[in-house]
Amino acid sequence: MPTVAIVYFSGSGHTKLMAEAVAAGASQVSNTEVKVLPLTGEQIVNGRWQDAATLDALNAADAIIFGSPTYMGGVAAQFKAFIDAASSVWAQQGWKDKIAGGFTHSGSPSGDKQGTLLYLAINAAQHSMVWVGNSEMGYNDLGVNRLGSFLGVMGFTVPDFSGQTPATLDEGDRLTSERYGRRIAEAVQRWKG
Amino acid sequence: MPTVAIVYFSGSGHTKLMAEAVAAGASQVSNTEVKVLPLTGEQIVNGRWQDAATLDALNAADAIIFGSPTYMGGVAAQFKAFIDAASSVWAQQGWKDKIAGGFTHSGSPSGDKQGTLLYLAINAAQHSMVWVGNSEMGYNDLGVNRLGSFLGVMGFTVPDFSGQTPATLDEGDRLTSERYGRRIAEAVQRWKG
Amino acid sequence: MPTVAIVYFSGSGHTKLMAEAVAAGASQVSNTEVKVLPLTGEQIVNGRWQDAATLDALNAADAIIFGSPTYMGGVAAQFKAFIDAASSVWAQQGWKDKIAGGFTHSGSPSGDKQGTLLYLAINAAQHSMVWVGNSEMGYNDLGVNRLGSFLGVMGFTVPDFSGQTPATLDEGDRLTSERYGRRIAEAVQRWKG
Amino acid sequence: MPTVAIVYFSGSGHTKLMAEAVAAGASQVSNTEVKVLPLTGEQIVNGRWQDAATLDALNAADAIIFGSPTYMGGVAAQFKAFIDAASSVWAQQGWKDKIAGGFTHSGSPSGDKQGTLLYLAINAAQHSMVWVGNSEMGYNDLGVNRLGSFLGVMGFTVPDFSGQTPATLDEGDRLTSERYGRRIAEAVQRWKG
Repeated sequence: MPTVAIVYFSGSGHTKLMAEAVAAGASQVSNTEVKVLPLTGEQIVNGRWQDAATLDALNAADAIIFGSPTYMGGVAAQFKAFIDAASSVWAQQGWKDKIAGGFTHSGSPSGDKQGTLLYLAINAAQHSMVWVGNSEMGYNDLGVNRLGSFLGVMGFTVPDFSGQTPATLDEGDRLTSERYGRRIAEAVQRWKG
Repeated sequence: MPTVAIVYFSGSGHTKLMAEAVAAGASQVSNTEVKVLPLTGEQIVNGRWQDAATLDALNAADAIIFGSPTYMGGVAAQFKAFIDAASSVWAQQGWKDKIAGGFTHSGSPSGDKQGTLLYLAINAAQHSMVWVGNSEMGYNDLGVNRLGSFLGVMGFTVPDFSGQTPATLDEGDRLTSERYGRRIAEAVQRWKG
Repeated sequence: MPTVAIVYFSGSGHTKLMAEAVAAGASQVSNTEVKVLPLTGEQIVNGRWQDAATLDALNAADAIIFGSPTYMGGVAAQFKAFIDAASSVWAQQGWKDKIAGGFTHSGSPSGDKQGTLLYLAINAAQHSMVWVGNSEMGYNDLGVNRLGSFLGVMGFTVPDFSGQTPATLDEGDRLTSERYGRRIAEAVQRWKG
Repeated sequence: MPTVAIVYFSGSGHTKLMAEAVAAGASQVSNTEVKVLPLTGEQIVNGRWQDAATLDALNAADAIIFGSPTYMGGVAAQFKAFIDAASSVWAQQGWKDKIAGGFTHSGSPSGDKQGTLLYLAINAAQHSMVWVGNSEMGYNDLGVNRLGSFLGVMGFTVPDFSGQTPATLDEGDRLTSERYGRRIAEAVQRWKG
């Protein structure tokens, strides 16, 4: 059964909500297994990420959707530590011809999130993966792709400077994420033949 | 007297409104001459842009602020035709050590506008110019930098699909543009010594 | 029969040589039709590109490989004029789910060519195309992917400042282009099912 | 006395050699203090970087030149951990109007290093820093800017897959780094007035 893996880091919880929505969308496609793989700071020792179970799951998947908050205009360091560790897979081209996609979240509408998606596409290209972007056009009452992002999905939440409130996700961004997960899962079905 | 030139292409008129706001901001700095230089499709023949007066004005300026709508994720072709023609200046490094900045507009909040600003910074770097970005932090009641853009200024207007209404500019985006023009003009004063 | 279209602009002839190599590679895959579509400055009037036959051929293709020299750190203005004109197709999402790829050439090893490939990927994402990059790892005696480019293929030729000599293409870059054309054509076969 | 700080992470030692060359160049400018600040994996605990002495030195500097190897198409995770930790400075805009620059190294001529420099410029823009790029045109017998990089400096060394040999730096790349350090130090003198 084709497998879609969603691997992400989340700091304040917003990217986690996006990951769950992407997973929900992928699960709508029949004959699809969905795996959600959170990354944690604890997996990093002396600056190096390590988690064999996560890498095994990714190696076995047919698609990998990468998710990270945008911190200071790029992927979170914790996420990058995972990417750098996956260079051992890259050297063997172990993810070659898997489907790839990406999503990110930040505290303003643009928030330099395009740079993060561009980076995710660069990394996927180094792995010789096939990139499937967001096909939603925006301009609808549901808020789907309200931010106007095409390489992947962007989410935006006004920061809670108190840090007290549980993370929430805009309904339009949630729906965009869900449809993106479905799109990737459908692409996997087609690509697997 | 230090001179700030604003060179831009505008299709539907939004980028023009941003250019005017940038110019207004630069004009707030005393002892500063401001020149606004619109590019037109008519300056392009067989795919090549040509306008000696515009190039002369840019060559004489101490700062150049570049403005283009984001079309299909990048600068407008008409704007790029100008950039390519300016490669004759580049070969002599005629704009070396001038101050540079940029702004762009599109029909959605992100709208892949960061890619446009990144491109403007790349081009300025090839010219050995010194890049001054947008220093507004956002998160204010005035809507200043409401989109969260830092390399330069972004403007966003919901498209008028009828094409009948005159272009307008969000007040926050207008104010961001104005402050950016002032910031660049102040940087020129400091850089010129 | 699956069709791979290669649409490119070439100034000094190097990008044309890359386009021909990409076409040769795609032609090695059986049951594949290959179309090479050069763009010209003459197709641009008042800054706007127009050529119905080229657009028709692209609309009918299963994959589009985009090629442009890197001028001043980005695609050539003539190429961008084509891209902007294709926004009429974009508005209808006429290229949705076609396979996409890209290649570029410049006069130095890096030469800011990655920015060009990033732009081509952004544009393809706006069209909801599926991006297939270069899967060659480099580090071989043949010079395949000698420059280390992954989103697409890069070519590099030391400039002939005299402008007298016919354009040539490095044999490694030619072979990289050829293999990339083959890779795209194979991806189309798989994607079409 | 104006201070130029060079903060970098180096894995195999090449980026360290570039940092030292940048420092040597900056030291050629009279009345300039130069500080070289290496980042280490040991400064990272549970994915978070922490080193008060380094941050203090950066806060006191007039220019910060950022250096990182390009790993998997972006800055090293260890370097990004430092960047993310510096978001505490960003929130206060503590580096506003400092001069910024960047350099990177990888194992192939392009090697997606432009993406790394673009990221460094994005981060600097978020800090409201003023970016000074590489002004060397290339095409000379000394190998200065042999790779053709303009936002900052690129270095390239063929990987030593044995991992046994001490890191070396191409003489052209060393000289490019040195001239870049000097350029930044001169820009600081001018900017400080």
